[in-house]
This record gives sequence, structure tokens and C-alpha cells, in this order.
Amino acid sequence: MTSGLSFNKNDPSINIGDKVLLYFDKKRRWIVKIEKGKVFLSDRGKIELDNLVGLVYGSKVKTSTNFDVYLMKPLPIDYIERGLKRVTQIIYPKDQGLIVMLLGIAPGLKVLEIGVGTGCTTAILANIVKPTGHVYGYEVREDFINIAKRNLSELGLLDYVTIKLKDAREGIDERDIDAAIVDIGNPWDVLERVYEALKPSAPIVFFVPSMNQIEKLYKALIDYGGFIDIRCYEVLLREIKLSIESIRPANFMVGHTGYIMFARKTLK
Amino acid sequence: MTSGLSFNKNDPSINIGDKVLLYFDKKRRWIVKIEKGKVFLSDRGKIELDNLVGLVYGSKVKTSTNFDVYLMKPLPIDYIERGLKRVTQIIYPKDQGLIVMLLGIAPGLKVLEIGVGTGCTTAILANIVKPTGHVYGYEVREDFINIAKRNLSELGLLDYVTIKLKDAREGIDERDIDAAIVDIGNPWDVLERVYEALKPSAPIVFFVPSMNQIEKLYKALIDYGGFIDIRCYEVLLREIKLSIESIRPANFMVGHTGYIMFARKTLK
Amino acid sequence: MTSGLSFNKNDPSINIGDKVLLYFDKKRRWIVKIEKGKVFLSDRGKIELDNLVGLVYGSKVKTSTNFDVYLMKPLPIDYIERGLKRVTQIIYPKDQGLIVMLLGIAPGLKVLEIGVGTGCTTAILANIVKPTGHVYGYEVREDFINIAKRNLSELGLLDYVTIKLKDAREGIDERDIDAAIVDIGNPWDVLERVYEALKPSAPIVFFVPSMNQIEKLYKALIDYGGFIDIRCYEVLLREIKLSIESIRPANFMVGHTGYIMFARKTLK
Amino acid sequence: MTSGLSFNKNDPSINIGDKVLLYFDKKRRWIVKIEKGKVFLSDRGKIELDNLVGLVYGSKVKTSTNFDVYLMKPLPIDYIERGLKRVTQIIYPKDQGLIVMLLGIAPGLKVLEIGVGTGCTTAILANIVKPTGHVYGYEVREDFINIAKRNLSELGLLDYVTIKLKDAREGIDERDIDAAIVDIGNPWDVLERVYEALKPSAPIVFFVPSMNQIEKLYKALIDYGGFIDIRCYEVLLREIKLSIESIRPANFMVGHTGYIMFARKTLK
Repeated sequence: MTSGLSFNKNDPSINIGDKVLLYFDKKRRWIVKIEKGKVFLSDRGKIELDNLVGLVYGSKVKTSTNFDVYLMKPLPIDYIERGLKRVTQIIYPKDQGLIVMLLGIAPGLKVLEIGVGTGCTTAILANIVKPTGHVYGYEVREDFINIAKRNLSELGLLDYVTIKLKDAREGIDERDIDAAIVDIGNPWDVLERVYEALKPSAPIVFFVPSMNQIEKLYKALIDYGGFIDIRCYEVLLREIKLSIESIRPANFMVGHTGYIMFARKTLK
Repeated sequence: MTSGLSFNKNDPSINIGDKVLLYFDKKRRWIVKIEKGKVFLSDRGKIELDNLVGLVYGSKVKTSTNFDVYLMKPLPIDYIERGLKRVTQIIYPKDQGLIVMLLGIAPGLKVLEIGVGTGCTTAILANIVKPTGHVYGYEVREDFINIAKRNLSELGLLDYVTIKLKDAREGIDERDIDAAIVDIGNPWDVLERVYEALKPSAPIVFFVPSMNQIEKLYKALIDYGGFIDIRCYEVLLREIKLSIESIRPANFMVGHTGYIMFARKTLK
Repeated sequence: MTSGLSFNKNDPSINIGDKVLLYFDKKRRWIVKIEKGKVFLSDRGKIELDNLVGLVYGSKVKTSTNFDVYLMKPLPIDYIERGLKRVTQIIYPKDQGLIVMLLGIAPGLKVLEIGVGTGCTTAILANIVKPTGHVYGYEVREDFINIAKRNLSELGLLDYVTIKLKDAREGIDERDIDAAIVDIGNPWDVLERVYEALKPSAPIVFFVPSMNQIEKLYKALIDYGGFIDIRCYEVLLREIKLSIESIRPANFMVGHTGYIMFARKTLK
Repeated sequence: MTSGLSFNKNDPSINIGDKVLLYFDKKRRWIVKIEKGKVFLSDRGKIELDNLVGLVYGSKVKTSTNFDVYLMKPLPIDYIERGLKRVTQIIYPKDQGLIVMLLGIAPGLKVLEIGVGTGCTTAILANIVKPTGHVYGYEVREDFINIAKRNLSELGLLDYVTIKLKDAREGIDERDIDAAIVDIGNPWDVLERVYEALKPSAPIVFFVPSMNQIEKLYKALIDYGGFIDIRCYEVLLREIKLSIESIRPANFMVGHTGYIMFARKTLK
């Protein structure tokens, strides 16, 4: 049995079936699955993928046009940046990182996710709570669920996740949840449901894109009661461009993704 | 045997020996250890701590002067914000979150930390790699190590961490490390040592406070070779102040902590 | 008649009555008025101010305890940072600069200011529209007006400003205004009044601290009609700390002052 | 003779020869010159420009396809955003605004600009120092100077500007300059020259894109002496997107333009 996520594999050499990050340069990087007879084509030449079998991760090979390519074991960020199918707006690593910190995500936890989308944040959560924890996801769109399941399956994480085609307003089946994340347009509509599902004292995070939603959600949380330590954050990530002659922030950056609202359940 | 971190405890009611977050309001919050006969004193009145035994987490009690206090199970962020002894500048949760994402920290990984300080980031890493992974830390100051060990012990995480009183320039004893973080003033001096310790293809993060250090480290990485995908990020966190009448970013914010440089090991 | 602002004086040497910036170091800097027999006292020693008469601006003198002091001609930012009496929250130079750019403030313009406060932004505007332009200010608090007039008088700018003790909701007396700035808590209440006062096509800026105000003002502008090109900006200023060994952003920064909303009047 | 800048014209109705901002919507906006028989074509229909003569600024007209267009008097920001020919990286309004504030730019000042480029910042400075002040510009590329002159001429500002085809390292002809801005790649090479040109106590701003340049310039300023109060700033501008349902920062933003270094001349 493979318990394993390809990005935690201990075997240092490449096998048939592995996912490999072909790293040409900053912009040319692809995750490919090693299969017999498969050829990878790029504007920098081609690579016969079964020639890679047996090579150690971190090795450098040449394309047919003599361009250097590094064979790297994909990291979770590689899947987020390049590997997963997505049709929705996803939560970015800058926000996922803070959410993991605020919720204290750790192995063994039972985490609730309202609004699974295509499973990108689900994968991040599952990769940390595994193997003894679990992520329970709710999503109203079946097409998203299908993509999410395929993504989680490719990452070897499907065993640690249950996704339900269900509107969380109709009820959440789980109880004693350790931490929850809500990423839907109308989070105020599910407060009672997630309150019931959470352990007393457990933390919850809401991801909301607009100022209007902060206002409405904050009012709803105050009106509902049952939550304390309500906070709101925004994370800005700047990339610094590196070259020997010139080190400077990138000319363009993501200016906004969403606001992260945090709260903790109390007994009512 | 201790299975446990107090912040992952499943028992919902308070016991002798537990750490509890006493939450009065945004600014009045303390982590206390429940002991027989102990009294907690504040400007809002006192609480006899053994009266709390048996109460469910999330409950509200009154101080001697009738002020509301919530009894919360501490989260990792509570320890970082309030609970750990520190004498050095620590890495903030905004940065720890991105580091966890970039390195793909997950259960079972072997992580190297050069520059343990008082163990704050060590705790975050250990809490995610546990119980099957491990953090190997190097620190040259014995007084820091003593504080770090006490902090990790209070969190129930000491079993998942080994800290050595050793300058990493003299060599790193471990091999096949899955991910490394370097948080010292002269990271360029340990490149060869951490290179040797890392698995091929493994990621590394450097945390450096100044622009001069980015320049010097980037040149050293290029000169050394053996690393690709060198990137540099900076995370800005804004808190949004919430009240019913006025929602707005906080007037003051942390303007800078440090730059996060990322790279991946290749075979040389 | 003095046409002159002390910060534009052409005479390069110090006279009785001049305002001089005594610059000791980054933190020790004061604007003093040169008067006969006056002595300036500091924790770095004293300076007899009439000894400075006749010295050229930019000169260095010694205090009684042999500390270096530079004698500088104050700039507008020095008055904003150190020289003006203020009791209200002021608009910061980072915001004033963008406002000047958005409104196209230039010599000869007639500018309207609703919410004068203690006259800090008034001074910036007057210093640019002078000598042929004018600033018309409205303020409901007489105590603020008195401070504003004293501030403007000290800067030699009072001739270019008219301040009225009047609530702008009761009407604005001027017409054919070239540009307006509104810095009050309820800007939606004065839309019709400022619309009437502005020239067709003229720009207006609103300075509002909270997200709730952006929402309310934006709705009011849409409902009122008569304005197009409605925009909203936020300016973040980071100071970079400079030393030979370490160049890095300051650890703390102003995280928020207010949002700058811009619009242009059309014929209705 | 009209000395005047089209963006300060007092005449409220449109004449032949005027520049008019045709405002369709946020993205469709163009500055056109009103000429006999000229037709403006867009994807939203055409406008016969001589039909606009006599209309009041701020009026709304219809295109041939019945689309609303507002006739606005162009502001300086319109020229910067839409109107000027540019081939170089320009300084943005967010930075120009802070520079104007730091230097205390005001009517009557003599300002030095090293590195004119295509005259965008020159126009901003000239528009504020006019009619009694002057901008002296140095530029080593004749093709840039030609564009800059054309731009300044279109704005009616050429009378207040002198641009020289000269490398500032070879000397600056002017003396008693009130304020200087240096926007070239090697600012450390002109320190002595600009020092000589500045009035004692006068301020100077350097605009540098990279961290390496901050380091090198700061060291050069310290080594040269003759400057105090050396500071460095960075301005981040966020646009807030406005709609009735959703108010939120724009998804993408300019992440970096350059650092603004400030200093003041002392006597050596």
C-alpha cells in the first residue's frame, strides 16, 4: 500500500508512475507523470520520459536541443502553482500559510471545510492532518467535487478527505470538529451550522474577498454570539526579483485575494 | 508517555496540569497552568484556578470583580503571541506560515533548523512533523537552547526535536533531510554544510532581515552552485480593526520582519 | 508686506524673526524662531539663538556641550512633522502628495476645503496655489479655526486662505471652484453643496478613514449623479532604515490613515 | 498670448485647439485635440470633434452608436496616464506626489532635474513652479529630449523649462537651486555636481529602482559628506475597486517602481 503523497516520497530515484517537476527555468516548469513511451515536448526541445527512470531526484538532464532540465520532486507549492486543475479562484499559499497558523492545523486534527472548490486548500489541509486526521468538505457544485477528487487522488490524499455534495445550510453531519474554514460567498448563512459542528473553544477562519462581506459577516458573528476573539487579517506577498546586478521587488504583484477572518467558539 | 501537545488535547474539560488561555478581551489574555491552590490575579479581579477543573473548554466564568473570562484551549498562535519565553527576535506567524507552505512541511518529515533561538519556529515545525517526523536544530548559544527546551517541553513537543549546541559551520551530523530553514546572521557560511545534509531536490528557506544580506546570500548561492529556483519573498500582514461602526486597517503595523529566500538542492 | 513663506525665503543667511530648523540628528530636530536673547535648551546642551544671526543656512554650530547642530531652512514637511500645532488627526504627506497630484493643484487655482481642522493640508494647498490662487476653507469648530489661522500665519500663508466658521451643509458661498477636498466624517451630506460650488469638469477628493465610509459615500455618489470617474486609492509608505551594514524597511510603519476617493463633476 | 496650460484654462467651453478628455468609461478615455473636420473613432462609435466646439466642459454627448461620452478638461494625471508620449520608465504619480511634498515644490522655485527622460516629472514640477519658477533639466539622450520638449509644449509648459543635452557629470551650469531630483542609473557619479548647484540647506531627492543602488548611493552620500537627514522611502499605491455589491482592493497592483532617497545639503 502506498500511504503516500508523491511529494513526501522517500525513494530518491525516479520510478514509473512518479510525478516529476521538470524545471527548465523560472517560467518553464511542468509536473509530468512518468509513463512508458511518453515524450514531453517544449519550446526548448523534447525529453523521453522513460529515460528518466532510475535517475536520482535533483539530477540534470538535457533536452533534445541541449537545454538543461532539472528533475525535481514536486513540492505542494508546485502542485498549487502548476499541477492542479482549477476552475475557481483558489486561496493562495500566502493566505493558506496564515490560515494553517491561525487554526493550528496539525496531524490528527478533524478539519471542516465549507466550500471545497477544486480542492486546492483541501489538499494543503489533508497533507498536514494525515494520516490520523481528516478533512470533511462541503461543496454544492458537483463539477467542482469531481475536479477536487481527481486533484486529491493525484496527490495521494483522497484517503484523508471526505467531500459531500451538500449545502452546509442544510446541516453539517460531523461533530467535535477541531478547526473549520469557510470559503463561500455567504458565510453568514452557515454560522449556526458550523457552530454546532465545532468543538467548544475550536477556531474557525472565514475567507472573504470584499469589504462589504467583512462588514456583513462581522455583524452576523456579533448578532449570533457564540464566537469570541474575532479578528481580520490581510496578507500581502511581494516577490523580490534577484539578479547579480539588481535586487528589487517585482514590478507587479497580486494586490488582493481576500480577507481572513478568525474567531473561536465559546459555549453559548 | 505523553502523546500530547496541550493544543491538540481531545478531552474537552479542564484538568489539573492543563494550560488554559484565560480570555478577558483582545488585550487581556494569558496562558495559565492549572494547579491546586493557585490564584490568578489581574486588573479585572482574581480567579481561583482550581475552581476551573472540570469545566468544559469554551465556558465563561466570572472574576472576583464580576468580569467575564472565557476558558479557551490554547492554540499554537497563543503560545507564540503570549506563552513562550523569548529573548531573541522571533519569526512571526505571517512568515512561519509561508515558510511551512514553501517547504511543504508535513507529518513524517525530517527538518533541519540552523539557528534555533528560543524555539518558537522549532515548535511550529515539530507540531506539524510529529509524531513520525523530527526537527534537528543547531544553536551556538547555550542559554537560548535552555529556553528553547523549556518552551518545547511546555508544549509537549520535546520528543520530536533534537537541539545541538554546535556551530553549523563545523558540520551537520544528519543526512537525507527533507527540508531546512536557516535563520542566522551569516547564512552564506553554512551553504556547503546544509547542502550535504539535504536530500537531493529538497527545499531550503533562509530568513534574512536586511537587503545587504539578500545580496550577499544570493551571490553566495550562485557562486556555490547546487541550488536552483532561488526566490525571495516578503510578507506584509495587515490587521483590520473591527467594530460595528468602523472597519478599517489598524493604524500601526509591523513594517518589516525579514525576507524569505527559497531554493532547492540539485546534484552538483 | 511679506509675500513670503519662510520655507521659500531666498535670503541665505539667518535673520531675527526667521524660523530655523535646528537639526541635531534624525530624532532631535526642532523649528525655532530667532529672537533676541532667546536660548534653546536640549538634552544635548544649549544654543544662544541670537548668535546664529548672520550665519548662512546649512551651517554647523556647536551646542554648549559640544554637540553638532545644523541650521536648516525649514521645508513644508518640517512644519508638518514638527512645527504646526495640531489637535486633530491630520492627513499625512504620503496622502497629501497623491491628493495634490490627483487634483492637479497648481498656482492660480481656487481650491475648496471642507473640514479644515488645524490647517495642515490647507497650508500645503495654499503654498502651491499662491500667490494668485486661493483656498476657501469650511470648518464647524471655532477652536480648530483659531489654531489653523495661527499655523497659517506662522507660515506666511494666511493671505491666500479664507476660513469660514460654517457647516458646509448650509451652503457654500463660492462658485467656479477648480478643485475640492472634503475631509469630514459625513461627506455624503455635502455632495450637493460641493457640486454647486465646483466648475463643471472639476475634480474632487474625499478623505475617509473606514471601509464603511467608502461604501456609504460610493452609494451616495452614484445616487446623486453628477460625478464620474469615481476611484478610490490607499497609499502605504514604508521607510527604509539606512546604515552602512544594514539597509532594511523600518520595523514599524503607519498601517493606515485613510482612503482617498476621487471623482469629477459633470453637468447634470 | 495664452501662457497657459490646458489643464488650468478658465474658459469653461470648448474651443478649436483645446485638448479634451473624452471619457467613455474607466478604460475608454482619450485626450484629443479639437480640430476642424477631425473625427474620433472608437469601438463605441465615432464623434465629429468640431461639433463639440462651444459645449461646456463636463457635458455629455452621444457617439454615432449612441454611447455616452463626457467631455472633460484634462487634468495633469490624465496627461500622465494617457496623454504623453513616453519611451522610458516614468516616475508614477504616487512617487511624484511624495517627491513634491518632500522637496516642498512651490511657485517660484528653481528646480534641477538630472535625468529628464521624456519629461513627465518635468511637467509636474513645471506646472507647480510656474510662472515665476523654472525647471533646469539635464539629459544625455537627444531623442528623449525631443520627446520631452514636444510633451511640455503640448502642455503649454515649455516656457518654464530649460533642457540641456549634457551629462551632469561634466558640470551643472546653474547655481542657487532650491531643490533637485536625480533620476539616473548612477546617481553617485553626480553628487559633487549637484552639491555645487544647490543652495545651502536645499533638499534633494534621488529615485533609484534597486536595493543595490540604495546601498551604493547611501555609502557615496556618507563618503562625500555635505548631506544630512538622509532618508529612504517606498510608496505603495493600492486601488480599491468600487461597485455597489463589492468594494475591494484591485486584484493586481504595481508592486514596485523605485525607492525615493532624500537628503539636504549642508555647508562642508
